[in-house]
Amino acid sequence: MSRYRAHPTAIVESASIGDGTTIWAFAHVMKGASIGKDCNIGDHCFVEPGVSIGDGCVIKNGNMLWEGVTLEGGVFVGPHVFFTNDLYPRSRHLPEAASRYAGRKDWLAKTRVKRGASLGAGAVILADLTIGEFAMVAAGAVVTKDVPAHALVLGNPARARGWVCRCGRVLRFSKGKASCACSLRWKSAKHGIENIR
Amino acid sequence: MSRYRAHPTAIVESASIGDGTTIWAFAHVMKGASIGKDCNIGDHCFVEPGVSIGDGCVIKNGNMLWEGVTLEGGVFVGPHVFFTNDLYPRSRHLPEAASRYAGRKDWLAKTRVKRGASLGAGAVILADLTIGEFAMVAAGAVVTKDVPAHALVLGNPARARGWVCRCGRVLRFSKGKASCACSLRWKSAKHGIENIR
Amino acid sequence: MSRYRAHPTAIVESASIGDGTTIWAFAHVMKGASIGKDCNIGDHCFVEPGVSIGDGCVIKNGNMLWEGVTLEGGVFVGPHVFFTNDLYPRSRHLPEAASRYAGRKDWLAKTRVKRGASLGAGAVILADLTIGEFAMVAAGAVVTKDVPAHALVLGNPARARGWVCRCGRVLRFSKGKASCACSLRWKSAKHGIENIR
Repeated sequence: MSRYRAHPTAIVESASIGDGTTIWAFAHVMKGASIGKDCNIGDHCFVEPGVSIGDGCVIKNGNMLWEGVTLEGGVFVGPHVFFTNDLYPRSRHLPEAASRYAGRKDWLAKTRVKRGASLGAGAVILADLTIGEFAMVAAGAVVTKDVPAHALVLGNPARARGWVCRCGRVLRFSKGKASCACSLRWKSAKHGIENIR
Repeated sequence: MSRYRAHPTAIVESASIGDGTTIWAFAHVMKGASIGKDCNIGDHCFVEPGVSIGDGCVIKNGNMLWEGVTLEGGVFVGPHVFFTNDLYPRSRHLPEAASRYAGRKDWLAKTRVKRGASLGAGAVILADLTIGEFAMVAAGAVVTKDVPAHALVLGNPARARGWVCRCGRVLRFSKGKASCACSLRWKSAKHGIENIR
Repeated sequence: MSRYRAHPTAIVESASIGDGTTIWAFAHVMKGASIGKDCNIGDHCFVEPGVSIGDGCVIKNGNMLWEGVTLEGGVFVGPHVFFTNDLYPRSRHLPEAASRYAGRKDWLAKTRVKRGASLGAGAVILADLTIGEFAMVAAGAVVTKDVPAHALVLGNPARARGWVCRCGRVLRFSKGKASCACSLRWKSAKHGIENIR
């Protein structure tokens, strides 16, 4: 039996919720959504069938996770982040567009957020893309393409502006090397950064 | 008698809701709001008195529709779109601004979204403007002026970047003509695009 | 005894709420949050322990006020404004970042919004900063640094684009002076604007 906690006002319809997870007030987790262990799902969140959330994720309040969204372990989703799953949405009740939606799912575009990444408050994440491990999406950024591991991206559209450590701190590189306050050391590499033992 | 459905946690105070409409969890539709037939009003939505929503609209979760907002039929409102109705808001309890609000409504600026248009996730729609038929406002765009019919707008502030078909797909023009995957054909016209029979 | 009103679906756990304040549907005010007199706290709002809200504030729907946020009197917070309190957030359940959060609060960055200021719909307010008296943050702006009193800021990142009166109207300066429709008169000063009696 799963031992998770849910606020009395939360609606939890999924049977797949890990031990130690807490679901807060006015949140709604639909049947067919999967949530790992030791997660926080904040007030007013909504989790749709088909969503997969790994262990140890913090989902701040007001987030809506749509079918097609996968979060790996240890992901931070700031307040009110905007996920999407349709690159050119229309009302499915609009006669001119209904054929795109009736009995088919090729409109569905997926998003994967890899282990340890952080999405800042109000970031907009377009679909059909991947946010790399330990990446940091700044608050208010509009992400339109893949984000490399450890990259800091910001702005509208979001552009890479630096690199962050596993702990989240921005790294200052000098001659291709950086030391973080958390004690980890890094060097520039061909497609990003590499940890130095 | 109207035959709409409402989740048990939804608060529906309006008597003007069309058949076939569904109102989801934790949504609040106030008295004096008007919603057409076959609409979806997602979780955590809020609809204020004076709002008018046409038939066949899809209002994704977390939307707040304020007095002064009119949606025509078949409109798609992505998650957490920001409508507004006051161009220079202040707290009405602030003595220095209270006279703007007490017993008057000239602060109220309206927004109209025309038939078949789509507003992407997290788009910000300033007031006193119109979004044209079948227009497409990209996720995260900040719309500060009227959007022509069929235009694709994006960025902050939002600028026109192309044209979309009725089905939502972006059109690729060559020598003033474009064919869409949905089979419709278009030509450039003086103030936008025109369907070719 | 405090005489405030709360919608039956609101969850009010704080004992510190001023007379004349109204808390609307599906809102959640946690224990240890402080709210002044004559405030409106809209539907689906969330107020965390340690937040302080002055008298006469209008907090539109869907706002989340985190520990570290202080609003002085008469502040207007538009719908879905994004406050933050951590400049480089990570999941506290992520082993690589857990030491930043366990039993310590130096990750906490504060935000102060001074008397009479307005924050437009969907504005993103980074932390460790102050919004000056009667400032106006435009809808959709991403505020990354302090905003001077009476300044109008907009864009991503937000930049100063003019000055606003106490009543909220944008001022048009000519030869260093401006008269507002509300009857107040202003002159340019070294670090902003000054009222002329």
